[in-house]
Amino acid sequence: MSDDPKPGLSRRALLGATAGGAAAAGAFGGGRLALTGGLFGLGGSLATTGAAQAATAEGFEVAPGQLDTHYGFWSSGQTGEMRILGIPSMRELMRVPVFNRCSATGWGETNESLRIHQRTMTEKTKKHLAANGKKIHDNGDLHHVHMSFTDGKYDGQYLFMNDKANTRVARVRADVMKCDAILEIPNAKAIHGLRPQKFPKTTYVFCNGEDEAPLVNDGSTMNDVSTYVNIFTAVDADKWLPAWQVMVSGNLDNCDADYEGKWAFSTSYNSEMGMTLADMTAAEMDHVVVFNIAAIEAAVAAGEGQELNGVRILDGRKDANSNFTRYIPIANNPHGCNMAPDKKHLCIGGKLSPTVTVLDVTKFDALFEKPAAEVDLRSPVVAEPELGLGPLHTAFDGRGNAYTSLFLDSQVVKWNIEDAIKAYAGEKIDPIKDKLDVQYQPGHLKTVMGETLEAESKWLVCLCKFSKDRFLNVGPLKPENDQLFDISGDKMVVVHDGPNFAEPHDAIAVAAAKMTNIRSAWDRQDPMWAETRKQAEADGVNLDEWADKVVRDGNKVRVYMTSQAPSFSLESFTVKEGDEVTVIITNLDDIDDLTHGFTMGNHGVAMEIGPQATSSITFVAANAGVYWYYCQWFCHALHMEMRGRMFVEPKA
Amino acid sequence: MSDDPKPGLSRRALLGATAGGAAAAGAFGGGRLALTGGLFGLGGSLATTGAAQAATAEGFEVAPGQLDTHYGFWSSGQTGEMRILGIPSMRELMRVPVFNRCSATGWGETNESLRIHQRTMTEKTKKHLAANGKKIHDNGDLHHVHMSFTDGKYDGQYLFMNDKANTRVARVRADVMKCDAILEIPNAKAIHGLRPQKFPKTTYVFCNGEDEAPLVNDGSTMNDVSTYVNIFTAVDADKWLPAWQVMVSGNLDNCDADYEGKWAFSTSYNSEMGMTLADMTAAEMDHVVVFNIAAIEAAVAAGEGQELNGVRILDGRKDANSNFTRYIPIANNPHGCNMAPDKKHLCIGGKLSPTVTVLDVTKFDALFEKPAAEVDLRSPVVAEPELGLGPLHTAFDGRGNAYTSLFLDSQVVKWNIEDAIKAYAGEKIDPIKDKLDVQYQPGHLKTVMGETLEAESKWLVCLCKFSKDRFLNVGPLKPENDQLFDISGDKMVVVHDGPNFAEPHDAIAVAAAKMTNIRSAWDRQDPMWAETRKQAEADGVNLDEWADKVVRDGNKVRVYMTSQAPSFSLESFTVKEGDEVTVIITNLDDIDDLTHGFTMGNHGVAMEIGPQATSSITFVAANAGVYWYYCQWFCHALHMEMRGRMFVEPKA
Repeated sequence: MSDDPKPGLSRRALLGATAGGAAAAGAFGGGRLALTGGLFGLGGSLATTGAAQAATAEGFEVAPGQLDTHYGFWSSGQTGEMRILGIPSMRELMRVPVFNRCSATGWGETNESLRIHQRTMTEKTKKHLAANGKKIHDNGDLHHVHMSFTDGKYDGQYLFMNDKANTRVARVRADVMKCDAILEIPNAKAIHGLRPQKFPKTTYVFCNGEDEAPLVNDGSTMNDVSTYVNIFTAVDADKWLPAWQVMVSGNLDNCDADYEGKWAFSTSYNSEMGMTLADMTAAEMDHVVVFNIAAIEAAVAAGEGQELNGVRILDGRKDANSNFTRYIPIANNPHGCNMAPDKKHLCIGGKLSPTVTVLDVTKFDALFEKPAAEVDLRSPVVAEPELGLGPLHTAFDGRGNAYTSLFLDSQVVKWNIEDAIKAYAGEKIDPIKDKLDVQYQPGHLKTVMGETLEAESKWLVCLCKFSKDRFLNVGPLKPENDQLFDISGDKMVVVHDGPNFAEPHDAIAVAAAKMTNIRSAWDRQDPMWAETRKQAEADGVNLDEWADKVVRDGNKVRVYMTSQAPSFSLESFTVKEGDEVTVIITNLDDIDDLTHGFTMGNHGVAMEIGPQATSSITFVAANAGVYWYYCQWFCHALHMEMRGRMFVEPKA
Repeated sequence: MSDDPKPGLSRRALLGATAGGAAAAGAFGGGRLALTGGLFGLGGSLATTGAAQAATAEGFEVAPGQLDTHYGFWSSGQTGEMRILGIPSMRELMRVPVFNRCSATGWGETNESLRIHQRTMTEKTKKHLAANGKKIHDNGDLHHVHMSFTDGKYDGQYLFMNDKANTRVARVRADVMKCDAILEIPNAKAIHGLRPQKFPKTTYVFCNGEDEAPLVNDGSTMNDVSTYVNIFTAVDADKWLPAWQVMVSGNLDNCDADYEGKWAFSTSYNSEMGMTLADMTAAEMDHVVVFNIAAIEAAVAAGEGQELNGVRILDGRKDANSNFTRYIPIANNPHGCNMAPDKKHLCIGGKLSPTVTVLDVTKFDALFEKPAAEVDLRSPVVAEPELGLGPLHTAFDGRGNAYTSLFLDSQVVKWNIEDAIKAYAGEKIDPIKDKLDVQYQPGHLKTVMGETLEAESKWLVCLCKFSKDRFLNVGPLKPENDQLFDISGDKMVVVHDGPNFAEPHDAIAVAAAKMTNIRSAWDRQDPMWAETRKQAEADGVNLDEWADKVVRDGNKVRVYMTSQAPSFSLESFTVKEGDEVTVIITNLDDIDDLTHGFTMGNHGVAMEIGPQATSSITFVAANAGVYWYYCQWFCHALHMEMRGRMFVEPKA
């Protein structure tokens, strides 16, 4: 990739060279006022495709029949699903629907998935959905996915993720790789950053409310910005319900937790509480909010604060002078929030500042020993290296090195934490070890196991926000570009470009050995269909055996059948025009990979039924006539013949 | 991959060796009666992962910065989208939503996409959707995707595809890679096989109705199977409306067309018109239906047949003795239907027969010279090689070789068409040149450009229906496995395993040089938002310029705004509780890859707005309060600050 300034349109010519931190800072300072004018935007076209990065590293290609060494769990942004990729092959191994409507699996349409969606729906959402003729929100904006921890290490139990669009968080079971719980978080708005507690285990999942609004958002004070608050939520990881909430000042962005179970921390980019772009970027300093978990728990136990919509809310705003929070000043609009596996250093990406601020979390206790006004809130700062333009996120290799994505420079910078600390203390040492161009404008980046005590030092994945001309042109909408780096040597090497559909914000990489719980068939007693089982029992149907029963209950008809390749147990069934029909299918096949499906022709419903699973789906049969249902999941040489008829009798 | 029979569980031990055609036929014959008992099913577990196929071929890996040589257009089965992959890298470059609801792009929710969905909706579908509280079917079963032709070659204009689930076909514009037309085909049921006319250009797209039902499916004759018919439809490729339909005997499976524009042909797997699995596989012979396009066009022009739901339907059933169709007897349940680029040979996969039947299409004229009863319907058969168990589909390399997928054997067999013809004529020659194990149970397979007069001989993609233990275990639901073969040498070599989400049925591969129409920004006059433009004109808004206008029209509110990174032109707007709000956004950015998005927080709506595009979305604002909208498509360093407020005033 060329670094040459291009006349007129070049991003680098415009912003200035960034190899020297001072020059970068200068360019940044000079550009600040022009921010809304597009100076820090995408710039013009870059002619980079021709000059390929030579892939000198070996071992990236996973040959046919060989397995990846790591699972990658990817968010998908506005696509609303979780993705599983193999690392290092970067192949997509599975899509797990969460906040989206999935045509293939019936997610968002099966009764089992609707129950998960509707479990904690607020009254406001119910009212909105009713007015819009919907059962659920069928979109989401899933930015962050993280695994449950035990003792600072991934435990292979759950994956947690956020929906910024509709203020929800969800949990995926790592044994079957299906979402088992969605929580609409009350009181908060736009859940963005999300992280699990790391130690001693994931009791809480911390969830950042990004948008500010009146706590009681009924329109009565909406024109008075002083009534707006931001909400930080701790979700009970087992119950998947809110444990407690804290009101804070500023828009919460990303978050993380320490390795001792004492703190959570969130970057905050609009301490101004500005409502316009100019106001949101007005102040020179924003902050990181530190949450004191023990103090919060004690206050919640004591019944302090207020209860609203079933959740206890404490006031941790700046002016409240509580001991729940401390606000550490950080240069303008900090973004990334990454705890190093050395258990000590928290790295905050400057975004609009060229620096990463390194905080020593062992110094946080001191911040709470006196009132906030009496302590030096910047005292935990142990380093603040200038790394380049637009530092967003930082990853770690377990060898003391940090890797920070530079959004504006379209680079990843490798730097050494201890060297940065020495430099901050006045020593003449350059903490920057390497810089590498990426293609381009990177957001999150992750090392394998890098957010745990078992950080590895072989692979880094850098999620670039744009791919432009990096792949064959596929029209106005382009894929993102997830680039794989080999970081085992002194110099970083890009070994693979991975196009990805909108918009993988974040990812984690987990060693295959950690995933000891994964099943290939469902347990017949799985709670996923507990409600369905209860109804079956009431209907006198044994869900675990070959069944073919049609139960009428007023204008509701429940059709129980079984699938076993290449047949459904029912070759036909009869209902009446206008009946509400529920089809309940148990897949008795237990062979690895033998998923069946059920599609009712011309009725807009289809579902997946995994090996040994039960699934059900409900629809109104509005038109008289004969309709074929069929198995849409290839199962057998006679798969196409796996079908049957629904007779819909005309109304008398 | 091991070929050794394993005691007890081995698929090969069960079915017998297949290297010799005679042995295969024997095994097959003996197994027939046990078909429904699972004999030809998935068998037990196979221990194949350990023994990797060595990837000896070079040139498959596409290094960072290098471009693929070919576009792959993939179907996705029950996922309902079209996928674009790069070949040979096998990377997914884009998802194009078609029959599915897409959270990222707003497909199925934007007004522009709803209009496309609703354009040809039948009254029955409208009634069904109303009864089920839906606007559209938001699932689909997209099996086949094919490109438009001019003179037997891909012309880079359109891609066409089917929805088996809800009897629809769709068209994707190859300039912007978005679906621009969906057609619900009346009278037919379950559109499966789909192919464009190849010569002189794609005037028609041929669509197989798979399921049989009464022509007037109102319940009055649904118990009388003799009233069931199957429907073959020719769709006008320009208007995307039905041109004509032909009633046929038997369930239509796959189809193709010749290189002279004279014929279409469909395999048919249930000539018995059986309603149960046993009945559907009862007869020794099924058939291929040949459609005589000139005869059909003449009859349609003459007003023959009947008109139903706006489409003229001719009777081409077996007993009707028309000159519209001929039924060529083919052994039990034929499946694949592939026209060779030699312009002469049509290859029919036997599925339940170990043979591929080769038909010389230049002999079809003779079939229509006399009544069907007076001609030898098998006279076009010029070869019928025994290739192995479960032959499904055939691909071609332009060098006279054919490649057939063997579902039950989990192999691809390479054979020579001319040698097969010689063998059929009695010469002692083995047409089989190579066999290669795949992983496993392959369906469609495709060579690059292999369905055109420009067939190439480098790559073959084989879409395996199962991956089992081929990748890291991701739970009960596994990906499929799209395997890439290097076929440039005498022996086929598997060079890449490509996991793929449910369920890539079929694919085509198109040389990058053919895709000359692809744009990177929209044309402001694009018809996609013509209706929206009309409304804007009525509202006095110039859609092509910076706009920020709120128009009230009773309880309908239209909010016009513009996006330019990092801002919307409206920082806030106000509506009343219960208003139906339509947000119309024009993206004035024209930089490559600069897509914006619009998400209304807690309202379940989001949409993509490509560079220079206009998109709109409508929802009822049911709850008073303040709600933030934001850009969910990463666009700028200040992307997170690209947001604004909707004030919903309480009802008076």
